[in-house]
Amino acid sequence: MTCTLAIDVMSGDHGVAVTVPAALDVLAEEKNLKLILVGQKKQVEAQLDSCPDDLRTQVEVVHASEIVSMDDKPSYALRNKKQSSMRLAINLVKENQAQACVSAGNTGALMATARFVLKTLPGIQRPAICTAIPSMGGHVHMLDLGANIDVSSIHLFEFAVMGSVLVQAVDNREQPAIGLLNIGEEELKGNDQIKQAAQLIQNSSLDYYGFVEGDDIFKGTVDVIVCDGFVGNVALKTSEGVAKMIASYLKQAYTQNLRSKLLAWLSRGILTRFKKQIDPGEYNGASLLGLKGIVVKSHGGADRRAFAQAIRVALLEVEKNVPQRISKQIEQLLVNKPENPPQ
Amino acid sequence: MTCTLAIDVMSGDHGVAVTVPAALDVLAEEKNLKLILVGQKKQVEAQLDSCPDDLRTQVEVVHASEIVSMDDKPSYALRNKKQSSMRLAINLVKENQAQACVSAGNTGALMATARFVLKTLPGIQRPAICTAIPSMGGHVHMLDLGANIDVSSIHLFEFAVMGSVLVQAVDNREQPAIGLLNIGEEELKGNDQIKQAAQLIQNSSLDYYGFVEGDDIFKGTVDVIVCDGFVGNVALKTSEGVAKMIASYLKQAYTQNLRSKLLAWLSRGILTRFKKQIDPGEYNGASLLGLKGIVVKSHGGADRRAFAQAIRVALLEVEKNVPQRISKQIEQLLVNKPENPPQ
Repeated sequence: MTCTLAIDVMSGDHGVAVTVPAALDVLAEEKNLKLILVGQKKQVEAQLDSCPDDLRTQVEVVHASEIVSMDDKPSYALRNKKQSSMRLAINLVKENQAQACVSAGNTGALMATARFVLKTLPGIQRPAICTAIPSMGGHVHMLDLGANIDVSSIHLFEFAVMGSVLVQAVDNREQPAIGLLNIGEEELKGNDQIKQAAQLIQNSSLDYYGFVEGDDIFKGTVDVIVCDGFVGNVALKTSEGVAKMIASYLKQAYTQNLRSKLLAWLSRGILTRFKKQIDPGEYNGASLLGLKGIVVKSHGGADRRAFAQAIRVALLEVEKNVPQRISKQIEQLLVNKPENPPQ
Repeated sequence: MTCTLAIDVMSGDHGVAVTVPAALDVLAEEKNLKLILVGQKKQVEAQLDSCPDDLRTQVEVVHASEIVSMDDKPSYALRNKKQSSMRLAINLVKENQAQACVSAGNTGALMATARFVLKTLPGIQRPAICTAIPSMGGHVHMLDLGANIDVSSIHLFEFAVMGSVLVQAVDNREQPAIGLLNIGEEELKGNDQIKQAAQLIQNSSLDYYGFVEGDDIFKGTVDVIVCDGFVGNVALKTSEGVAKMIASYLKQAYTQNLRSKLLAWLSRGILTRFKKQIDPGEYNGASLLGLKGIVVKSHGGADRRAFAQAIRVALLEVEKNVPQRISKQIEQLLVNKPENPPQ
């Protein structure tokens, strides 16, 4: 099967100098991949100059005259940036010229545009952002990470379904265990939406583990953690903040004097392996789930290796037909859903 | 000035074997301190056997026949455990026999009991839980950490006032910078409560920095971070979870083989300093703010050193008259508060 991905190469902090080489890295690994690089034609082609001929034939460049900036309001980008690299990349998915698109741009604009252009899947009220987060001995998928601030129990239930399907597809887990993020494991804790969502998930065919707390994210307690977008976003950024602080302290400790620098040099193998374990770049690529198409959001500050990782996430979702699977699963569950679900 | 602290020595994961020695450690440091140890008399006195005579005269034991368990619902503890060590320790504060109390027990029960027995300060609708969290180059105080799940803008404003006063008092900062935890720094993001709380804080005499995100907790961006109790609790537990995971990976890396173990031994000074920087025990002791009395909650799993730290937090709050300061500040701000504040 040939797969075509549309890459918004303009968005993000580093632009074509990072995104184009990253895209070519993935292209070199994959036999049946084609890429449509969407961006300022001259800039993109300058980056393609050194591209080997056999790869170059697999690359098409689509010119985009505009860029969505990190400060653009989603509604502004949607209305006024119809020739942006982000918009055109999403359009290519809509027009079936690409099976997925990847962008390192403004999350709000990406979600708003993707939702407007691609539309949500039948049965899904709210698309959500989901990513894998490193945890003890593996990783956990968490959603929503910022698309939905105020959610009902039904929305949380939808997130559980979408997260479960994603993990089934990309991690080959038959029945992913689902946890609802709460502030205590006891049944009595949490607000009404969460308690009602717990009932909905428990009464469905999903594998419901129960409530989990913030530290469970990293314990490998469950495969999928469900929460509203506000809490998810804070939890994700908090964990990135802690990891950065700790990395910085460790660096300080090992560069204090000549002796510590020597020890750092002797320990370089250990420290490199350790850093790799906690490197968020290994897990770059958040999925916008619940849309009629695959859209993957890269971290804005992603380097070449991390951006390539986001492209691989998109490729895997294409291979595994994630939107179709979500659609099928939600259809099955809707049949069995209580008639008057609590809101 | 002599200060008397009531210590609930029964609650928490380890009981008297940890809490009593920790209390005596603090007693040995402080000249004018008296302690009332509240718990099962026999157990407590067995722990006091080896206590030097000069310290022993500074210790009183008050017998408590019950213990609030970690699983007791707050309402159950409040109604049925009137002879618990937790309840009696709080009663001692109410009766002015102690200036503060410290407990490692069930947070919900502690807050409910403290609120019932001590009452909230005039002008405060919702007491909140606040603790110092290590950040780059120092620490930041964050509240609420779990007492209030659903909050209005007024509640968030109260948290800002209480956090500001606490930092003024214990860190000697004249005008602590206050940040509101949100999912983006842009003005348009966040829900209505947060946007309205931002206005309230900005229009007050407090030093409002603006919105902050999860990673700002550890960057030292502000002195006080304000959020609802759900988000605060998730953020705190998330950061503990990440730190534990990273510490465990580092340990793994350094114990893999003989060479790495040798390097760990050679690096032990570096690694010990590093661990101390990220050790949550250094920051044990969360304040229940907004009450007519000082109550400090220790981590349930606190070891001797960490429990002693929670006692020191209580002592410092007594010395600095924290409740009186909050009362005075809220009175001043109420005078200047908009007549019809948004809810």
